Amino acid sequence: MNPMRPVRFQHQPPYFAVIFTSLRTDIDDGYAETSDRMLELAADQPGFLGVESVREGAFGITVSYWTSLDAIRRWKQHGDHLIAQRRGRTEWYHDYRTRVCCVERHYGPESSSR
Amino acid sequence: MNPMRPVRFQHQPPYFAVIFTSLRTDIDDGYAETSDRMLELAADQPGFLGVESVREGAFGITVSYWTSLDAIRRWKQHGDHLIAQRRGRTEWYHDYRTRVCCVERHYGPESSSR
Repeated sequence: MNPMRPVRFQHQPPYFAVIFTSLRTDIDDGYAETSDRMLELAADQPGFLGVESVREGAFGITVSYWTSLDAIRRWKQHGDHLIAQRRGRTEWYHDYRTRVCCVERHYGPESSSR
Repeated sequence: MNPMRPVRFQHQPPYFAVIFTSLRTDIDDGYAETSDRMLELAADQPGFLGVESVREGAFGITVSYWTSLDAIRRWKQHGDHLIAQRRGRTEWYHDYRTRVCCVERHYGPESSSR
């Protein structure tokens, strides 16, 4: 069971999102640990707002939210993250796509506690 | 097994994305059929570029891509989609979040056939 839920934060648009979609290979070799570690490490970075992540079989979507493009750039260049990206390209992912976006508006139910 | 993979299309940035994240209730009552039907119907709309969708347990992420904000607005107002949105709010979703974004850049491996 995925413990995730739609993420909410005080920050209002505009803010930024990185949509990362990926198709896994069958190679494990530390994938789950690295994936969890990257989510934790991202959450410690300046400018991080939140993350949502789901995988069903081989296909997964992770969306992270940030206050600025600079914050995204710094996270992309983080040493541990660079190592994980390289392993992703060479071992863990058949295919992937990264999209950097500006979130122009967001909405949902008034309260999340329905 | 999710048949999805990272979606590719000729259209280059800027283009637009709708990130829809949701937390399901236990109520089924036509949810799967409506969800599949909405993906098909969206794909028929002018300005549609592609869609990626994953659910793991109660939590799901669907990202649809569009050529313009007008195309997104028209799809949001589509009659069958309005009915589905209402049922989502009242029956199928504990919580959800919709984010409308401008995709400023995208990248991935050179080829998707690794």
